[in-house]
Amino acid sequence: MSVYVVGHKIPDSDSICGAIALAYLKNQIGEPSIAARLGDLSPETAFILEKFGFEAPEFKTSYAGEEVFIVDHSELTQAPDDIAEATIVGIVDHHKLGDLTTSTPLECWIRPVGCSNTIIKMMYDFHGVAIPKDIAGIMMCAILSDTVIFKSPTCTTADIKCVEALAEIAGIEDFKELGMDMFKVKSAVEGTPARDLVMRDFKDFNMNGNKIGIGQLEVIDLSVFDDIKAELEADISALKAEGERHSVILLLTDIMKEGSELLVITDDAGLIERAYGIACENDRVWLDGVLSRKKQIVPQLQDALA
Amino acid sequence: MSVYVVGHKIPDSDSICGAIALAYLKNQIGEPSIAARLGDLSPETAFILEKFGFEAPEFKTSYAGEEVFIVDHSELTQAPDDIAEATIVGIVDHHKLGDLTTSTPLECWIRPVGCSNTIIKMMYDFHGVAIPKDIAGIMMCAILSDTVIFKSPTCTTADIKCVEALAEIAGIEDFKELGMDMFKVKSAVEGTPARDLVMRDFKDFNMNGNKIGIGQLEVIDLSVFDDIKAELEADISALKAEGERHSVILLLTDIMKEGSELLVITDDAGLIERAYGIACENDRVWLDGVLSRKKQIVPQLQDALA
Repeated sequence: MSVYVVGHKIPDSDSICGAIALAYLKNQIGEPSIAARLGDLSPETAFILEKFGFEAPEFKTSYAGEEVFIVDHSELTQAPDDIAEATIVGIVDHHKLGDLTTSTPLECWIRPVGCSNTIIKMMYDFHGVAIPKDIAGIMMCAILSDTVIFKSPTCTTADIKCVEALAEIAGIEDFKELGMDMFKVKSAVEGTPARDLVMRDFKDFNMNGNKIGIGQLEVIDLSVFDDIKAELEADISALKAEGERHSVILLLTDIMKEGSELLVITDDAGLIERAYGIACENDRVWLDGVLSRKKQIVPQLQDALA
Repeated sequence: MSVYVVGHKIPDSDSICGAIALAYLKNQIGEPSIAARLGDLSPETAFILEKFGFEAPEFKTSYAGEEVFIVDHSELTQAPDDIAEATIVGIVDHHKLGDLTTSTPLECWIRPVGCSNTIIKMMYDFHGVAIPKDIAGIMMCAILSDTVIFKSPTCTTADIKCVEALAEIAGIEDFKELGMDMFKVKSAVEGTPARDLVMRDFKDFNMNGNKIGIGQLEVIDLSVFDDIKAELEADISALKAEGERHSVILLLTDIMKEGSELLVITDDAGLIERAYGIACENDRVWLDGVLSRKKQIVPQLQDALA
């Protein structure tokens, strides 16, 4: 029986590239595995897979009765809906420890680094398996994406060394240029419906019983949002009502200015000030230096809701 | 600030030896750490520490405001009572994934092997730190204990190779003989109060909202319990009432005959038959081939209560 290797809902490049890279490794060490995905590819991920010649992993949303290796999260809200009926045989992740549990022993490779693919590289090294050139390429891109080309505070020495090693295997001379090409693809938001933009990198969290949705759009220049900000706000307001969420936050991240504007719709008017020390004005607030949802948004919000 | 490295409540040899071994490793790589424990040493653990010249780790039950590295479990019921007020920076474990969660990223080294110390050996190898002779000795003993000298179905090739490598470092020629000496210490139950025996290796689990206590005593010959079985049954009955538990099960494991007699006190008369396919007679049942609580008792019980 094959193990399905699958990332989170609304997959990002780390979830997709990680599933492909880990499934390859598992097959090499005699554990039949199939890379899968829970949703559509983002334009960035499509760009990466095309560049290195990969097809999208199998689209599969139901895993009842299957064995599953989870990539890039450990949260029920981000896992397949029927994960309770599957057997989780492993988790590779770089976030806080979520509420997934199992009834049998498993392998968890969780590290406080910038990207799951950095940990998957450690798994290749542990098993002594050589990384093929094309797989090194997609792993490298996933790390450049998650670490915002090393600018994110989540970026660690391990991530940088890993990118350098993978770039050499992949034969990429200027990986920072490739990283900027990726973020240019990400910045092309014109003509895309508001809902598609909001959902492009959107995660739900359970914070002390409150369902909190947090989306993030990382671009090279925030001015691309000037004409559509009101539309985005209308959409996250709708999203809050549809999903019976306590709050929805959309981070508009400027990777060159290195900060994020938050668009906030919440039941709790004091939430943002309690979490970040600055109050919203007209449901918007600029947080200087904030690039990372995982490290600079989620824990503070969780504490404010504890 | 130092990180406290601490195993589960009612610590076994894996929890104690693992805390010592991991704290040493962390100190070597520049992360100040202190080994701690949540309870008294078992006679087996005392024997191991004395043999290799170690003091017991610091007895400490409160961790509010501290950073903690958790050893040998990921369950709230087995963690310090105030763990929610501590920061969990890491987990090393070989059990099912429990209900501990965190609000910040952490490192988890969880593997489906027979003992946490086998994973701690992998951590030494990953960091390229040499294991001192005396630490190799206690790590080896913890693995021999958890794997019942390789007889347990939880034992993997990784555990056996790890013991062989540690025995060489520790300069132990006949590690199986040392293992039998440990189990002889474990088998000396005469004169010990029933409560002390029941609590010697006792763990509470949250199974679908039900609090289930499961103790285990591993001995070389079950006849040591002939005269005290009724006393043990009276005690687990009291323990069930005191802790408002749904069920308490005591495994009397014969490591030579390779099976366990279960003493069972439960609110759910059909539970044991649903879980293991054999009904109790007079609240007792012999399960041939059952040596492992983790692999042969807990998952089946969890499924029967799902």
